[in-house]
Amino acid sequence: MEAIEGIKNLSYALDTFYFLITGALVMWMAAGFAMLEAGLVRSKNTAEILTKNIVLFAIAGIMYMLMGYNIMYPADGNGYFPAIDLSFMFGGSENVPAEVLATDIKGWYDGSYYSGMSDFFFQMVFVATAMSIVSGAVAERMKLWAFMVFAVVMTGFIYPLQGYWKWGGGFLDAMGFQDFAGSGVVHLCGAAAALAGVLLLGARKGKYGPNGEIRAIPGANLPMATLGTFILWMGWFGFNGGSELILSNVGEANAVAAVFVNTNMAAAGGVVAGILTARMLFGKADLTMALNGALAGLVAITAEPLAPTPIGATLIGAVGGVLVVFAIITMDKLKIDDPVGAISVHGVVGIFGLMVVPIFNTDATYVTQATGMAVIFAWSFGASLVTWGIIKMVMGIRVSAEEEYEGVDIGECGLEAYPEFTNK
Amino acid sequence: MEAIEGIKNLSYALDTFYFLITGALVMWMAAGFAMLEAGLVRSKNTAEILTKNIVLFAIAGIMYMLMGYNIMYPADGNGYFPAIDLSFMFGGSENVPAEVLATDIKGWYDGSYYSGMSDFFFQMVFVATAMSIVSGAVAERMKLWAFMVFAVVMTGFIYPLQGYWKWGGGFLDAMGFQDFAGSGVVHLCGAAAALAGVLLLGARKGKYGPNGEIRAIPGANLPMATLGTFILWMGWFGFNGGSELILSNVGEANAVAAVFVNTNMAAAGGVVAGILTARMLFGKADLTMALNGALAGLVAITAEPLAPTPIGATLIGAVGGVLVVFAIITMDKLKIDDPVGAISVHGVVGIFGLMVVPIFNTDATYVTQATGMAVIFAWSFGASLVTWGIIKMVMGIRVSAEEEYEGVDIGECGLEAYPEFTNK
Amino acid sequence: MEAIEGIKNLSYALDTFYFLITGALVMWMAAGFAMLEAGLVRSKNTAEILTKNIVLFAIAGIMYMLMGYNIMYPADGNGYFPAIDLSFMFGGSENVPAEVLATDIKGWYDGSYYSGMSDFFFQMVFVATAMSIVSGAVAERMKLWAFMVFAVVMTGFIYPLQGYWKWGGGFLDAMGFQDFAGSGVVHLCGAAAALAGVLLLGARKGKYGPNGEIRAIPGANLPMATLGTFILWMGWFGFNGGSELILSNVGEANAVAAVFVNTNMAAAGGVVAGILTARMLFGKADLTMALNGALAGLVAITAEPLAPTPIGATLIGAVGGVLVVFAIITMDKLKIDDPVGAISVHGVVGIFGLMVVPIFNTDATYVTQATGMAVIFAWSFGASLVTWGIIKMVMGIRVSAEEEYEGVDIGECGLEAYPEFTNK
Repeated sequence: MEAIEGIKNLSYALDTFYFLITGALVMWMAAGFAMLEAGLVRSKNTAEILTKNIVLFAIAGIMYMLMGYNIMYPADGNGYFPAIDLSFMFGGSENVPAEVLATDIKGWYDGSYYSGMSDFFFQMVFVATAMSIVSGAVAERMKLWAFMVFAVVMTGFIYPLQGYWKWGGGFLDAMGFQDFAGSGVVHLCGAAAALAGVLLLGARKGKYGPNGEIRAIPGANLPMATLGTFILWMGWFGFNGGSELILSNVGEANAVAAVFVNTNMAAAGGVVAGILTARMLFGKADLTMALNGALAGLVAITAEPLAPTPIGATLIGAVGGVLVVFAIITMDKLKIDDPVGAISVHGVVGIFGLMVVPIFNTDATYVTQATGMAVIFAWSFGASLVTWGIIKMVMGIRVSAEEEYEGVDIGECGLEAYPEFTNK
Repeated sequence: MEAIEGIKNLSYALDTFYFLITGALVMWMAAGFAMLEAGLVRSKNTAEILTKNIVLFAIAGIMYMLMGYNIMYPADGNGYFPAIDLSFMFGGSENVPAEVLATDIKGWYDGSYYSGMSDFFFQMVFVATAMSIVSGAVAERMKLWAFMVFAVVMTGFIYPLQGYWKWGGGFLDAMGFQDFAGSGVVHLCGAAAALAGVLLLGARKGKYGPNGEIRAIPGANLPMATLGTFILWMGWFGFNGGSELILSNVGEANAVAAVFVNTNMAAAGGVVAGILTARMLFGKADLTMALNGALAGLVAITAEPLAPTPIGATLIGAVGGVLVVFAIITMDKLKIDDPVGAISVHGVVGIFGLMVVPIFNTDATYVTQATGMAVIFAWSFGASLVTWGIIKMVMGIRVSAEEEYEGVDIGECGLEAYPEFTNK
Repeated sequence: MEAIEGIKNLSYALDTFYFLITGALVMWMAAGFAMLEAGLVRSKNTAEILTKNIVLFAIAGIMYMLMGYNIMYPADGNGYFPAIDLSFMFGGSENVPAEVLATDIKGWYDGSYYSGMSDFFFQMVFVATAMSIVSGAVAERMKLWAFMVFAVVMTGFIYPLQGYWKWGGGFLDAMGFQDFAGSGVVHLCGAAAALAGVLLLGARKGKYGPNGEIRAIPGANLPMATLGTFILWMGWFGFNGGSELILSNVGEANAVAAVFVNTNMAAAGGVVAGILTARMLFGKADLTMALNGALAGLVAITAEPLAPTPIGATLIGAVGGVLVVFAIITMDKLKIDDPVGAISVHGVVGIFGLMVVPIFNTDATYVTQATGMAVIFAWSFGASLVTWGIIKMVMGIRVSAEEEYEGVDIGECGLEAYPEFTNK
């Protein structure tokens, strides 16, 4: 009996540590989004996008602590609405979803198996990821403070409610909808919120000419954007790898390892497919399409990184990498101006990720996947549209034409990102 | 009995791994300081600050191996002075502080519980953090080699002796002074050493005008500074999270998880408070104050990241975030020229962090906290002042006015950080 | 018996997690190489080197899955040639080298001890490291697609075959050749492939003047190069630390901890030696030599990071740091144009690392080390020379003089890395 006690302690400690380290890797994705977006905008709008990225990460943590976590993982609820319970922020580790979830665990040890605080940490960094998707799409012309207000609503309410429907045990989960680490719950949700914002905001001045021409607006710092992509690639091992939720026995350890491998292979497939597609379409090895290909591969595999073989994961990623290039071209034809391609990467490819699950996972059907996708999109887009609309009425969401011309860095932040470098 | 043997082995391995991974995260903070400081100085002084940062990390490791570790964690000592024992560098893992400390451990398993080498690794990266604080404050006008000499003394002697007083079981520890991960031992110590250097060094040319005006000297690369802040934020999970020193049972795993959450919440509180304070004072969302707010939140929670609830941690961080903005303004009024705000972030907020402990941890009193703070400051400041003074006499600490004007990169390093970018 | 079952499960999970996390750190080195190389080339060639780095990482993963892993760790083979077995890509975790290796493990628990997928993950990121070494040496004048084709052959065949000879249990292993984490198998192999490419490619235009003068071509972004070095330093804890291959008992945990410490000390010794050597030779504290010194220290210790004491590791690193400065100077005298010093860092110092092993590890002899070194060099250089030669005949390997003058970014990638910054 003494030995069993020791094993339970070790098991609990290992699974908690696994959550904390994978959670730290997901937190690191916030830096990835910040660098990616800072590299893909013009230098005059760089300090502002950096400000948005660090502040949104802070807001996400605070709002998820105050409201979001309790909405998403409530002690009780009817599957559509969670029971109100704000105990977490005061009680902290008392509100232990781990205990609720533990009955689902198949493994050697079947009990309460990791710290509730580590669960909160892991879930909290996910909401920040969803919000980071938005900042890129609305870059270079949205008011900083309007964005902040939206971040409060998104991270405290819009994201957590649809998260409850799936991961909190709500009706999408009951229906059999499968979304391992969040191609839908995180990426499509973020992309839908971004799309709503972009539609109300309009395109950047000069992006689309009077005669229908589309003008490329190159990012100012591609090493930074590449660094951001590598950071996201690394962080995704935590994002998908941690979403297995348990590590401490042979079966689960094998599953986590398979998820790491498949996550990597999908990104690799996306890079190769993205660069080859760009080569065929544009005649050049467009670096930004290699970066978008990597991210597309990662988004595509996120709904089901466990079931495919490594070569299957590579192919899923490769399809994502082709898809994202065409999606970016299509968005521009539709005059949906998304400076970093976030809606294409996280939205279009997120949908693909959800819909490819039934091929590899027999628990999923095309009907439940399509339903879950439609529900997440409808809720995230609709609720965001209303929120953006109210913000637009109350305080406005777009900077003045003059501020846009001068750059939002000076107007919003009162400083420049690269005061010594730019050729003015 | 065989099972117990297996559990002891696993427990030892898990706690060692926990130390190594959290230590690697703290090592990563060296990159964070390098990027933060490189982003906040002018381009003409960037290569030199990078050189200082990588060389100080190397010196810290070597000096801590040769002297510091034995001073800080001696086999014996009277509480004020450690017994001399230079066995570590030759014997390596023979000098196992883990065994000394193990009697303090409350948990399932109570024995020698992790590799002494992993303890050395974890402690070694802390001394580098303290030294990194100094490099920012003296940036843009200090001689490179004078800085190196100071780094030798600081990491080999000044930091380890006060570290011994608290973490090595010396008189501050005996008195009941509480400093979980080093708001005092690491951050205040580094800031005090920096202050001593800045006072002997004087302000940068042109920073303070003849009529009392204070001139802003903008940093050359804010994406780099933001990256540095995200790196530090991530690394701090190791800094605070590893300072629990043990992970391998339910109680300790819960503690480590709570430390991760509180560390994150304090940084989040600091960001929001910093940017709102800047908005109120300057009318703009000053990115650098969001970055300083994040770091201030992290420094503030470091003295006690375990006891507060998440919302308490958020508030501690928020107070730190407000404080740092006013501290930076005050330093400039006092003509203490600190290009990156290191003395404000690590010193002023470090003191706040120490003094807020008694609110959450009943083991601490305001008297013992104030005493510990005063002792650390007096020793670190005094010993550093003497050291800087001797260096100044012997080899000088300030570059020539001409070299300062031209930039220390050419003078000290013989190259430029961005040879193709700057508008000259 | 129930307890033993639990311990086996935990042991398996912990060792798998150790592989996955150290593997993620090695993956992170891909970002380090990308940033290092992007910082050390001129701005007009930056986007192309970034493209090469992210695409090579993708190719490495795919080719290693399709061919490399089965060549390097075959189910069977005669020590020189592996038996053909392509089951991995389809079966995934069925092909479990862990089971094959487990009989070598000395420890508390002696059985199949970690997930085969985690082993694949760890080995896969190593092949990417070898390939990353090549991209730096051929920078600024090689055709992008020629490089890609070489990457396919290198990561699918050239690297894995010599890897089989040592780590897969082939004839070099049987002979007693010692190479803990790959000073030879990874670094020398990569450098030999790079050297073959550079010899066929020739120097950059303008690097060597008509009268024998050597012109310095400064890198465009030293903060980026410094970041890359810090990333590599951090990632190397995974590279060497994970190469112990097991963690889960007291002896192995102590070994992993010693490897972490020695890896760090060698890098520290390399930095100090590199900067002092540069100071003595050039009169300036050349930042790039501090960076090369760090990497040289890391390469030097990689063949044997376990046996030395910390002070021994520091000295090994320091010799590496001196050596690399002279090697870089010598390469230039020989008109071997290597823009980032990769051949010196990974080749010359890699050989030193192999040859210093017998001083610390009595299992090694100078004869076996020299034999292993010669075999790895001869195979990697020869096979690469043939491969580069064929590619040169079929599609050419060097861009046109005009494209080289304009910069390969525009010609190969159709975009610029820093469109707003450079002074043209």
